[in-house]
Amino acid sequence: MPQLRKDPVLNQWVIISPERGKRPSDFKSPPKIEEDITHCPFCEGNEHMTSGEVLAFRKAGTEANTKGWWVRIVPDIAPILTPCTDANREGFGMFDAMNALGVHEMVIEFPGHYDSIATAELEQVKEIIWAYKQRLLEIKKNPSYKHFMIIKNSGLAVSSVSHEHSQIIATPIIPKRVEEEIEGAREYFRYHDRCLFCDIVKQELRTASRLVYENDGFVVFCPFASRFPFEMEITPKQHLPFFENIETDNIASFADALREALIKMNALLPEQPYNFVLHTSPCSDAYKDYYHWHLSLMPKLTKTAGFEWGSGFYINPTPPEDAAELLRKAK
Amino acid sequence: MPQLRKDPVLNQWVIISPERGKRPSDFKSPPKIEEDITHCPFCEGNEHMTSGEVLAFRKAGTEANTKGWWVRIVPDIAPILTPCTDANREGFGMFDAMNALGVHEMVIEFPGHYDSIATAELEQVKEIIWAYKQRLLEIKKNPSYKHFMIIKNSGLAVSSVSHEHSQIIATPIIPKRVEEEIEGAREYFRYHDRCLFCDIVKQELRTASRLVYENDGFVVFCPFASRFPFEMEITPKQHLPFFENIETDNIASFADALREALIKMNALLPEQPYNFVLHTSPCSDAYKDYYHWHLSLMPKLTKTAGFEWGSGFYINPTPPEDAAELLRKAK
Repeated sequence: MPQLRKDPVLNQWVIISPERGKRPSDFKSPPKIEEDITHCPFCEGNEHMTSGEVLAFRKAGTEANTKGWWVRIVPDIAPILTPCTDANREGFGMFDAMNALGVHEMVIEFPGHYDSIATAELEQVKEIIWAYKQRLLEIKKNPSYKHFMIIKNSGLAVSSVSHEHSQIIATPIIPKRVEEEIEGAREYFRYHDRCLFCDIVKQELRTASRLVYENDGFVVFCPFASRFPFEMEITPKQHLPFFENIETDNIASFADALREALIKMNALLPEQPYNFVLHTSPCSDAYKDYYHWHLSLMPKLTKTAGFEWGSGFYINPTPPEDAAELLRKAK
Repeated sequence: MPQLRKDPVLNQWVIISPERGKRPSDFKSPPKIEEDITHCPFCEGNEHMTSGEVLAFRKAGTEANTKGWWVRIVPDIAPILTPCTDANREGFGMFDAMNALGVHEMVIEFPGHYDSIATAELEQVKEIIWAYKQRLLEIKKNPSYKHFMIIKNSGLAVSSVSHEHSQIIATPIIPKRVEEEIEGAREYFRYHDRCLFCDIVKQELRTASRLVYENDGFVVFCPFASRFPFEMEITPKQHLPFFENIETDNIASFADALREALIKMNALLPEQPYNFVLHTSPCSDAYKDYYHWHLSLMPKLTKTAGFEWGSGFYINPTPPEDAAELLRKAK
């Protein structure tokens, strides 16, 4: 019978429905969309089609906003958040509003249109992670921003551009989802005097049934209360609140874990769209004892409808133990 | 420039992007799907294709699970929650789980396949609401259930059955989303000693710019921090925590408000899928001073991706003031 499982971080219940026991082949591939890639703004040679770069790793001697780069970061052309001097917080009767102050940048992960983390050399994945780190450290100098995160929408079903890219978003407030994680982690820390994320890593390594991959620095697993089929979590084994403080060794381990997770996902669920979200601690030392950076990888296979909207519960037709077993074997 | 607006109930920020200023014609209609409706389990004459009815309004003298009904409620054929005697709460190491105890029923709103609330007579809409009320009062007798709600997924893009129906869901725990609403309403009540929802109704009536429709008992408006384009909220003017205690006069007003909102939505956004969620107070008197039942109507026009998942922020390209103006005029 279906089981209700609680996510200890988000304090959120998920309905795991083993009867439905959906396997990878039960999920329809998205329809193929014909694309004219000659006008892709993210392809090498089309640098004039984006905003000016704020960071690029490029060959010595090449000029900004020309060919010759291997990772390139540009502000979004129609940003949802924009840098401005003042948030201009204001009340409208009983309601609160402010300017949408923030940073919204595109990390173009490859010069070529058809490259992806799953098919790339490890060196290139490391370069992408270096670019995240370097850019976050730069943005963090502005005290207006309370939090930043890195997200990725991959596939035309979830993104308007199929050229692989991720996004850096900085906000003047701590987003609700992150507040919820902090709250869950803080409660656990108060009670146990231990980091919730560290404990999850240990338990997943011990239980092993939801484990997908492990290397020196990172563990990849399907969370106990996975909201989505084949959802994976990538967490550093060491207690590290801030992603942006990641060091050379760990960059290599993280690149390996991320690439391995995506190779496995791709093998089981070819062409399926996915999202990832990298959460790091808000820009303050207040949370460092119990917040632990991590990345959630969410294949986009199921629809969310009224039930999820109304309850905040998720329905997952693939138990994470089954998902992990398939992912472990996938190559 | 885009604006960040805070939803005072959910304590959730929304990015309202007037630059994008999307109008109804900017949203593509979903592709038409050919259907063979002879096998629709919800059509009159196909009663044998569903679970046995738990409630039906039917002609005197007709037998259960045969023709002759005008509203019919049946348990879902593959329920996500099932009645059982014991939730069997259990720990798995540091994780919590329990049986997915609950009620999951389908309210078949019409005997005919192509009928809908927007095109129905007011009398029929009142009957649907009577059925909700009567069934909730019955389910509420079981003390295992802490909360129930009514949701609706309309359109093949969000539902597997196109025959119009809604769902009754009872759960052994208060869903996270409802907990969040309670928390927002409780904080407001502590500070102001007034119901947050009552204050919103008054402010929306006074401001008028987000007002869509009003009758004796109900107000229909686009929320200040609408998460979705053309989102509407239907709220009773009187402070009423429990939907299921609705009385005859208010049933007529609610039926009129709901039908009017759907007629307007249909006129502006024909064929577009939508969800609605009806939230009533959890089964306890503890919240009655500050919880106020209400219905959220959400056209499904935008996609949610990594940003929404990672932040809990929503991006809405249609300011609610613009949406309300168009909806007010729509017929």
